[in-house]
Amino acid sequence: MERNGADALERLIAALPADAVVADPARMDAYRWDRAGDPGAGVPLCVVRPASTDDVQAVVRIAAATGTSVVPRGAGSGLSGGSTAVEGGIVLSMERMRTIEVDAVTRTVVAGPGALNAEVKAEAARHGLWYPPDPSSFEICSIGGNVATNAGGLCCVKYGVTSDYVLGMVVVLADGSIVRLGGARLKDVAGLSLTKLFVGSEGTLGIITEVTLRLLPAQKPPTTLVATFATLEAAVGAVLGITGTMRPSMLEFMDRVTISAVEDATRMGLDTDAAAMLIAQSDEPGGHAAWEVERMTAVCVEQGAVEVFSTDDPAEGEAFVVARRMAIPAVERLGALLLEDVGVPLPRLHHLVEGIADISGRNDVTIALIAHAGDGNTHPLIVLDPVDHAQQERARTAYGEVMDLAIALGGTITGEHGVGRLKRPWLRDYLGDDVLALNERVKAALDPAGILNPGAVFADARGLDGG
Amino acid sequence: MERNGADALERLIAALPADAVVADPARMDAYRWDRAGDPGAGVPLCVVRPASTDDVQAVVRIAAATGTSVVPRGAGSGLSGGSTAVEGGIVLSMERMRTIEVDAVTRTVVAGPGALNAEVKAEAARHGLWYPPDPSSFEICSIGGNVATNAGGLCCVKYGVTSDYVLGMVVVLADGSIVRLGGARLKDVAGLSLTKLFVGSEGTLGIITEVTLRLLPAQKPPTTLVATFATLEAAVGAVLGITGTMRPSMLEFMDRVTISAVEDATRMGLDTDAAAMLIAQSDEPGGHAAWEVERMTAVCVEQGAVEVFSTDDPAEGEAFVVARRMAIPAVERLGALLLEDVGVPLPRLHHLVEGIADISGRNDVTIALIAHAGDGNTHPLIVLDPVDHAQQERARTAYGEVMDLAIALGGTITGEHGVGRLKRPWLRDYLGDDVLALNERVKAALDPAGILNPGAVFADARGLDGG
Repeated sequence: MERNGADALERLIAALPADAVVADPARMDAYRWDRAGDPGAGVPLCVVRPASTDDVQAVVRIAAATGTSVVPRGAGSGLSGGSTAVEGGIVLSMERMRTIEVDAVTRTVVAGPGALNAEVKAEAARHGLWYPPDPSSFEICSIGGNVATNAGGLCCVKYGVTSDYVLGMVVVLADGSIVRLGGARLKDVAGLSLTKLFVGSEGTLGIITEVTLRLLPAQKPPTTLVATFATLEAAVGAVLGITGTMRPSMLEFMDRVTISAVEDATRMGLDTDAAAMLIAQSDEPGGHAAWEVERMTAVCVEQGAVEVFSTDDPAEGEAFVVARRMAIPAVERLGALLLEDVGVPLPRLHHLVEGIADISGRNDVTIALIAHAGDGNTHPLIVLDPVDHAQQERARTAYGEVMDLAIALGGTITGEHGVGRLKRPWLRDYLGDDVLALNERVKAALDPAGILNPGAVFADARGLDGG
Repeated sequence: MERNGADALERLIAALPADAVVADPARMDAYRWDRAGDPGAGVPLCVVRPASTDDVQAVVRIAAATGTSVVPRGAGSGLSGGSTAVEGGIVLSMERMRTIEVDAVTRTVVAGPGALNAEVKAEAARHGLWYPPDPSSFEICSIGGNVATNAGGLCCVKYGVTSDYVLGMVVVLADGSIVRLGGARLKDVAGLSLTKLFVGSEGTLGIITEVTLRLLPAQKPPTTLVATFATLEAAVGAVLGITGTMRPSMLEFMDRVTISAVEDATRMGLDTDAAAMLIAQSDEPGGHAAWEVERMTAVCVEQGAVEVFSTDDPAEGEAFVVARRMAIPAVERLGALLLEDVGVPLPRLHHLVEGIADISGRNDVTIALIAHAGDGNTHPLIVLDPVDHAQQERARTAYGEVMDLAIALGGTITGEHGVGRLKRPWLRDYLGDDVLALNERVKAALDPAGILNPGAVFADARGLDGG
């Protein structure tokens, strides 16, 4: 094996259809960053847009033979720099691999990694079926990226995360071999749970070229509750009161900064005096959703809610969910964002919320807080002043302090976005030396040369890590 | 490292509490077999019954230092020989590690591996919560064994398998180090999905000494449907009609041989002329269960059911579920059983059912068929004549032919029991050389000396495999 970029590029062009390989620097720019905007992005050797598993195999074989790194990329909506381009490497964009085939009898769908989450949902819906996982970005994120990061979303509190829906996949391994893992079977325990291992591996163990996902019958129209609170404590109290006894299909939290930003963007009449707002839904069938929302209302009232509103009109309820989904773009109007993704066991949610307020004050940076509160997964949105370098420095300090706080509270540094490159410096603190070493042993067993997404999750074993 | 049994035993006795180490051959006999009754069982060096993770660490360190194998064992209810004793090895029985602590706020439970599934369910119920996975053996199987085999059960068709409930665990690795993976968080994507990798690893990657499991609010009282059919085809047609549009909380199948055996054992008045019987439940809240059972009834009638009966009396419904759970002991009255566990994608269920009838006829052996029909997971029960060796030979041929058939139909050789030692000869045919090699790479990375459960899932790397 020799490292030879020019040789690799020549071989890629020879092996793949003419328009699959992009080496023009201007055109490649669109593939260097995901939404995390990693400042450490390199200039890739080329971007390859395969149309099939065989194309991917051809790319990985050439990469392996020439020691060239491969960074797989879905729709580029990642928030942790998992698909930041590596200097001199191949960016493998799955944008053309987007077939979607639903099998209504087995309630499964087979999809290409480039298919958007929303496209999978839509195709399932045409068969009266439902693909639950719903990242806020579901309209623009790819299913391959969802599987690679084990993406979460709003419905996880009741319906679980992406991993719970992945039954099988086709993977191109680091040596270019193709393996098919699992399939359209809910139960299969023959051999190790490799399918689940590849879920959330962020492109570091192999390239996922096809996924088989479990579908559910269509969701029932939800009943929606919106409650506002004068204190963060009261809102968190209501969250705990609800999750201990009920299974809401959504339980979202926004703090005052977020409420104000969303109100500025939408003028929908939100209470900008409230310290926090909860948006909850029940999708239980028949009259049971109304009954469950009544019980949630009682919990909110008991916790001293300022106002509680509920509606069984799905369109009216959806307006509030859209408001919640708009939170990130709305807060982005205040400046660039450092987007956090820390999670804690639910009983410590109030410690996390209080601690973030403290970090915000001490560092003199604005932090808006939204949360998938029902599963303790929060997104502190740290606002960056684009021209004030001292403020940027303070914001980065706050970013690290939020992760340190989550670790101290027995929480995770990333609940659903992935480690990527931006959170890698905190991974050892979170996992500990022993568990990180265990991760590294698995990585080394599957990608001994370290060509797959080097620098993401794991330090670049080739000693080339610029990030 | 040296292989020295006497030395290992001496060191174990010195390192552990006096009553933890059992080396008396007569007392060890109870620990040599699980329910699979593997004829290849060896005589172990000793049985160790640890009381803590530290005890397990002490055992594994001594095993690693002396090259002694370790076979972890839950309640011994395994059906594939996953805890068959290995000649000269340590049997590590988790029977004393059975603490159960429920946290109602996070809806999780932390349990020792030796706690019985039924004990975990009961402790959850005391907090108004529910641990769904329900192997038919739930009253006698351990939660550690459930996690080690990724056990299934009757409610999986709606509620998924064990893996869907495992959020974290403590594991003693092959070198004796202790790692804590995951925790009481529904979302955590920091690092590889190692928790899920250990689920279903059958003791080959590490020794699980504690598990953190997700709980749900208590299940609603179910409404039950029982339907009989004159042909297997009609019953399978009803299964497909139901699963495509509904989410029954149970959808079980029994064939004529099974119905007769259960009727002989219970005298509950089952229709022994029927070719097949389905038992389905809906646990939807409010009046929705009745509505769903009405829709299931319509599907059964449309498929030409001979009789359809339904009840919303949970006790009356439970009688039929108990009948289904009694199927294995009832059929066991006909002789010893070779218990199969093959699964196929649902649309091929009728091919599997027909093929099994053909295998039964050609080999002149009785095969009773029960199935978790809603997820395509079947248990052909091959009856062994205890004194007729020629019949036993034909039965073993049939056992292999059933797995060959499942593989040919795109199915799995084991849906929920595990590979253990009895199904290992078919694992390569099922996975293929490439996926088996990938499994072996992960195994070698985590247990390079091959001391953990050698001969289960993987061939004994130490070249000592008697099975």
